[in-house]
Amino acid sequence: MDKSPETRHPVPAFGWAARDPSGQLSPFNFSRRETGEDDVRFKVSYCGICHTDLHCIKNEWGSANYPLIPGHEITGVVTEVGSKVKKVKVGDKVGVGCLVRSCRTCEHCANDYENYCPKPVFTYDAPDYDGTVTYGGYSDYMVANEHFIIKFPDNMPLDAGAPLLCAGITVYSPLKYFGLDVPGTHIAVAGLGGLGHVAVKFAKAFGAKVTVISTSPKKKQEALEHLGADYFLVSSDQDQLKAAKGTMDGIIDTISAPHSIVSLTGLLKPHGKLVLVGLPEKPLELPAFAVVPGRKTLAGSNIGGLKETQEMLDFAAKHNITSDIEVIPIDYVNTAMERLAKGDVRYRFVIDIGNTLAATKP
Amino acid sequence: MDKSPETRHPVPAFGWAARDPSGQLSPFNFSRRETGEDDVRFKVSYCGICHTDLHCIKNEWGSANYPLIPGHEITGVVTEVGSKVKKVKVGDKVGVGCLVRSCRTCEHCANDYENYCPKPVFTYDAPDYDGTVTYGGYSDYMVANEHFIIKFPDNMPLDAGAPLLCAGITVYSPLKYFGLDVPGTHIAVAGLGGLGHVAVKFAKAFGAKVTVISTSPKKKQEALEHLGADYFLVSSDQDQLKAAKGTMDGIIDTISAPHSIVSLTGLLKPHGKLVLVGLPEKPLELPAFAVVPGRKTLAGSNIGGLKETQEMLDFAAKHNITSDIEVIPIDYVNTAMERLAKGDVRYRFVIDIGNTLAATKP
Repeated sequence: MDKSPETRHPVPAFGWAARDPSGQLSPFNFSRRETGEDDVRFKVSYCGICHTDLHCIKNEWGSANYPLIPGHEITGVVTEVGSKVKKVKVGDKVGVGCLVRSCRTCEHCANDYENYCPKPVFTYDAPDYDGTVTYGGYSDYMVANEHFIIKFPDNMPLDAGAPLLCAGITVYSPLKYFGLDVPGTHIAVAGLGGLGHVAVKFAKAFGAKVTVISTSPKKKQEALEHLGADYFLVSSDQDQLKAAKGTMDGIIDTISAPHSIVSLTGLLKPHGKLVLVGLPEKPLELPAFAVVPGRKTLAGSNIGGLKETQEMLDFAAKHNITSDIEVIPIDYVNTAMERLAKGDVRYRFVIDIGNTLAATKP
Repeated sequence: MDKSPETRHPVPAFGWAARDPSGQLSPFNFSRRETGEDDVRFKVSYCGICHTDLHCIKNEWGSANYPLIPGHEITGVVTEVGSKVKKVKVGDKVGVGCLVRSCRTCEHCANDYENYCPKPVFTYDAPDYDGTVTYGGYSDYMVANEHFIIKFPDNMPLDAGAPLLCAGITVYSPLKYFGLDVPGTHIAVAGLGGLGHVAVKFAKAFGAKVTVISTSPKKKQEALEHLGADYFLVSSDQDQLKAAKGTMDGIIDTISAPHSIVSLTGLLKPHGKLVLVGLPEKPLELPAFAVVPGRKTLAGSNIGGLKETQEMLDFAAKHNITSDIEVIPIDYVNTAMERLAKGDVRYRFVIDIGNTLAATKP
């Protein structure tokens, strides 16, 4: 792999890339592979900005390789399909989430858990099986094996639907897996951001009573009136915590800052489940008495498999669930990253790639 | 409740009690209630010494009320039954574990999880619903509501079967609840003591491959040859940990000393489950990355309900599972406690109440 990004593959491509950990992105010419017999090529319409994108461009997890094109909430319209492709045809609305390849042979892949395959290829900044590196959705075209293509239902918009490919499946999958999708259960969502606001919508659609737990009392009106949560709890208010003690079946914990696990497990009924979907940098403190007496579960969960991602999107379309978004042009992306770092977005930036990227080509 | 323990109830009783946090027990006259219409009275034959007994008599959990008669692994022979009792008759072999009462009306009781009832009455040093305090099995007779009486199958010995009423159900219940009772699964048991050695036996009976994880290389032969474990892993051996990485479906963690959770979750496959049944005093450190990427579960579990305890004992009888015990006379109990504190028992002390208690009555 001694060729440059621009000549590594036969098909010219264009996007915005980070070149260093400054957090700044800029126009970047690279290349993508030809459309293989199992591949789908699509023109990118929109790409959501996930917090992971910010972590990665700044190399905050220490694994960045530059130039790096982020983006794994990618939607668009099919422009070419390989000879063996059956799932979609030219003109279909599609998306790609966090994964573009997996081994397809291990027990996890066989059980539709490609996300837990030991050899996953993530959508950007990851070594693909051919030794090249993957580039994400802040770019004009995507090409991926059809297995990793999600079909967009007619009524699912490509802009507000894009974040569901990461944020949506990240909260939908644990609600299903841990049996928290049952009508009448009491679910809490801790943290009201890109993940949390979608979690509230899915939990409500499953028929749950939903409590939003937030550090910020200011979010109460938004949570109850706009998102339709049933209750709101300020995480620092000991009286509120005490009143809600032992009432919840499950908590989807989207908080990536350090926080008290004991406060949350205390809200659970016996057999209740606290599921981490954020990744706080420092270890959490877990006293055994927080989980032993009530046989409580503290688990993690990470995106979802392809079959379940399709199921999630179909469910969302049926229940009119989308992400609340702020659509931006590509040349606003660096400002958007700064605002994202401050939590200043309600709740997801989505880049209008289709209408704004080409004009930035040098 | 201003009456003394000796005159509080109408029926005279005798046992050994702790009078202070010294860890010493001595003969003690008290009283028990008459046999109510739903009650079963039995002459105590044996009582196991659980590590909880040691914690409680020394007031290490800060909740002791003296005089305190410990013991919640109690077996014996029925001497009297109330008019409404249907479960057992005079002469039957029976046992009582950690619980002697629960509300019987909450959702947990309704689902046979009396152990997760918000109003449980533990077998000793607990306020009963009538305001009196409960006394445990280091005593001549027990009386309990028939719902909390476990029937002993004919082939289940009253001595080696006694520890199953606490240690046995404590490990059996999570193996069942977390789906770790499936043939061919790979189960690890961390810590080879009173709980751990029984966990190995149950896991083997369920058809699992079993790895024993211990700090002590000396336990290898015992684990493999005597208990029938398939593998042995020294918890401080990084090479062994690395070789076993990602191979286990579940771990029953019986360790009550501080220990590394990350080392254990690293051994789990995706969707693997680490279940704490011990109660380390200090909080454990849990980095989110230990559970999020492979959707792993860290849970706790605490004894089991009455229905499941009976099921466990019947299963144990069918599979010839008992505890490995050292039978002692009651006047050895203080020495036994000292040895237990040092871990010097393989694997459970059981007091021969039936043959040795009466002789110590002043």
